[in-house]
Amino acid sequence: MSKSPSNPKGTRDFLPSTLSKRNYILDIIKNNFKLFGFLQIETPALERNTTLLGKYGNEGDRLIFKILNSGDKIKKADITAYKENKLSVFIDSISEKGLRYDLTVPLARFVSQHQNELVFPFKRFQIQNVWRADRPQHGRFQEFTQCDADIIGSNSIIQEIELLKLYDCVFSELGFDDIVFKINHRSLLSALANYIGVENKLNDFISIIDKIDKIGVDNAVREIKDSIHNISTSKLSGLLSEKKISIQKLDDLFDDSPKTKKGIDDLKTIIEFFSKNNSLKNEIIFDLTLARGLNYYTGTIIEVISKSNKKLGSLGGGGRYDDLTSLFNMKMTSGVGISFGLDRIYLQMEEENMFPQHLDISYDIIVINFGINYIEKLYPLINSLRKNGKKISIYPENIKLNKQFSYADKHKVKYAILMGENENLNNEIIIKDMINGTQSSHSIIKVNSDLFEDK
Amino acid sequence: MSKSPSNPKGTRDFLPSTLSKRNYILDIIKNNFKLFGFLQIETPALERNTTLLGKYGNEGDRLIFKILNSGDKIKKADITAYKENKLSVFIDSISEKGLRYDLTVPLARFVSQHQNELVFPFKRFQIQNVWRADRPQHGRFQEFTQCDADIIGSNSIIQEIELLKLYDCVFSELGFDDIVFKINHRSLLSALANYIGVENKLNDFISIIDKIDKIGVDNAVREIKDSIHNISTSKLSGLLSEKKISIQKLDDLFDDSPKTKKGIDDLKTIIEFFSKNNSLKNEIIFDLTLARGLNYYTGTIIEVISKSNKKLGSLGGGGRYDDLTSLFNMKMTSGVGISFGLDRIYLQMEEENMFPQHLDISYDIIVINFGINYIEKLYPLINSLRKNGKKISIYPENIKLNKQFSYADKHKVKYAILMGENENLNNEIIIKDMINGTQSSHSIIKVNSDLFEDK
Repeated sequence: MSKSPSNPKGTRDFLPSTLSKRNYILDIIKNNFKLFGFLQIETPALERNTTLLGKYGNEGDRLIFKILNSGDKIKKADITAYKENKLSVFIDSISEKGLRYDLTVPLARFVSQHQNELVFPFKRFQIQNVWRADRPQHGRFQEFTQCDADIIGSNSIIQEIELLKLYDCVFSELGFDDIVFKINHRSLLSALANYIGVENKLNDFISIIDKIDKIGVDNAVREIKDSIHNISTSKLSGLLSEKKISIQKLDDLFDDSPKTKKGIDDLKTIIEFFSKNNSLKNEIIFDLTLARGLNYYTGTIIEVISKSNKKLGSLGGGGRYDDLTSLFNMKMTSGVGISFGLDRIYLQMEEENMFPQHLDISYDIIVINFGINYIEKLYPLINSLRKNGKKISIYPENIKLNKQFSYADKHKVKYAILMGENENLNNEIIIKDMINGTQSSHSIIKVNSDLFEDK
Repeated sequence: MSKSPSNPKGTRDFLPSTLSKRNYILDIIKNNFKLFGFLQIETPALERNTTLLGKYGNEGDRLIFKILNSGDKIKKADITAYKENKLSVFIDSISEKGLRYDLTVPLARFVSQHQNELVFPFKRFQIQNVWRADRPQHGRFQEFTQCDADIIGSNSIIQEIELLKLYDCVFSELGFDDIVFKINHRSLLSALANYIGVENKLNDFISIIDKIDKIGVDNAVREIKDSIHNISTSKLSGLLSEKKISIQKLDDLFDDSPKTKKGIDDLKTIIEFFSKNNSLKNEIIFDLTLARGLNYYTGTIIEVISKSNKKLGSLGGGGRYDDLTSLFNMKMTSGVGISFGLDRIYLQMEEENMFPQHLDISYDIIVINFGINYIEKLYPLINSLRKNGKKISIYPENIKLNKQFSYADKHKVKYAILMGENENLNNEIIIKDMINGTQSSHSIIKVNSDLFEDK
């Protein structure tokens, strides 16, 4: 037995004060998902390794938590493979399941498996934990919550527009006023790769572009030159450095393949839509250097940045992927989705004091304990106040008043109900306002929840 | 790659229609937890094996899902132990963490670890999944949701009373009208064991008593006689068979040790409390045959039964445990708690059609698509309706009306908004009532959310 018990490194216990703030964010996200017509699903934490492996690259496969087979199955361990240092064969022999690594691959599995039970286009949201065997470090956790909304089975650009507006609504409701939505299109990155002659190394090219935020344009261009192809750097530097490059300019510059044209048209449509009806509260900009790391994106890509806190990284991101369900034998099903970065949103809101104060309050009323007989008499009143939505805790012991009040203060309770011997004889209670210390007597039968309203 | 993808056996995907019903139950439970002054916490799914193992008995240890160490740690596999068939030593060499098996042991770990950050008595609720490597079978899952409320650090009988009333409120709000709360006290089971002379085999005795619901009194008595001690069966049979044995009778019969007296006093206090103020909607009965399987209970034990559906088993249960945190080096901290059986509650509500109909409705309004230009014009209206709480989906493609309506019908949507060429020219929309088929025209600037209210 461990002398000082603790949760595993890289995981977190959430105490009530933290959890109420996390849930404040999650409730706003969830409510907006519903207002935009998304339906909630849940998938199990456990998935078959065959579902998980090979979807996230080699590094991803390594970071999937594998579950040890239970019961007699453990007896099938492949010791020979272990001795030959074929660790993944050894692991396969003792593990069939792993922990969910993200919500997107399980969604693809879910949609393929249940396609006959679903109505397409299928708009789903999902808020569940995922697990990654990353080395624990500051701000990076092995268990964290993902909040995703995706539409499966629709090519319409309306979906990108709706997802951007959904972001807009959530961040506004949370109180952010410095948000920028960056958008780009994977086909423009392809066209760019084509333009500088590295189209056969597209994924490498994209993963270097993805680092521009961290390493800067010059270093990225140098890395492309060194590791991919001896390109003419000035051509690329010029394009990538241009702060507000226009889509029109690219239209003139890039090849006019249908794919490129589609990318340019999509971005134009999105930006024009919002500029005409003026319904986006936050800014939207086209950014040719936006790449998004994940391999499965094929169309529009989106990222949410806080202008005042760029070092935090993106607060959300997403994009369109045309072929994800085909991994599970369901063809021709375009998907598009976004994700909220709960931990980063929390961090910034905490830093900038954006959470409403009422989240600190544990409950509304404490009932001071003068003995169980008094509680017995008060119980119908307590029940009726709870029915009217008042959160009430009864102090459990008949101890000194100052101890009971101190307990209430620690919970930031607004009101106390007291009924001692005198009040009992008169069928009265005292209501004490714990904030300003005033108190007043009330006949029990006249007490109602209005007496405990916020002033 | 699996040709037909599927979730692992013993786990479940929740489609929107099921999840909305599960969440309906969970929301009512959660809301009542808050009304009774409980604060929410969360603990990680991953716990150290040292935290989990040895707390649930040998069978429990076997059923804990173990996580394979990641990275280079897997190279420390103890192959010698494996070959000598010392499987638990082998497992220990490749696994340091496991999945949460219940919420009670993590609570004890949490309270010990964070004792200086918490205010005692600490009233917490927790709604999270747990995992058990049970053989998958009908109605038994490897991953399921537990809903617990516990108070740590209070001996007061007020807590038992509050927990019973909390049960009463939740089951009433869910629409149950056939609930019985059975109560007993572990000290009475000790006294009973004492009375028939098997006090030195208390845990065995309790686990046989615990099976009475399934095997009947006669078989239980026979098993006690055969496997524990050659008792005089008539004495025990008589007591256990008595349908409504009175606490008073036991008071006369049993030893008058302080422990037994405490048990009898506690039960009397609870029953008298509710009989005086008449504030329990459901029935409460003392049942000497109620045992609850878990070893850690030391005081009052509680179980929730539906009279009309006894074959389902209990819908919830709980009790007092005096020593759980001492497992984690925190002494003298009495705890008491209850748990809701979400899956069984769901099953019975589904069987008896107890879910409100509105849970079927995916969203309130569908916007019929006549082309993106029309959507662009409608977008400010759509945003304003969403701000007023209306859940709206926009049909993504400009396709035949009957296809769009059929999509809406499948989602049980109540209203459609239409704006085609004519309406656009007149700055009007048509609102179609999808239930009765009627439709009406409205000037766009006059449309507000009242037009979409339930009638």
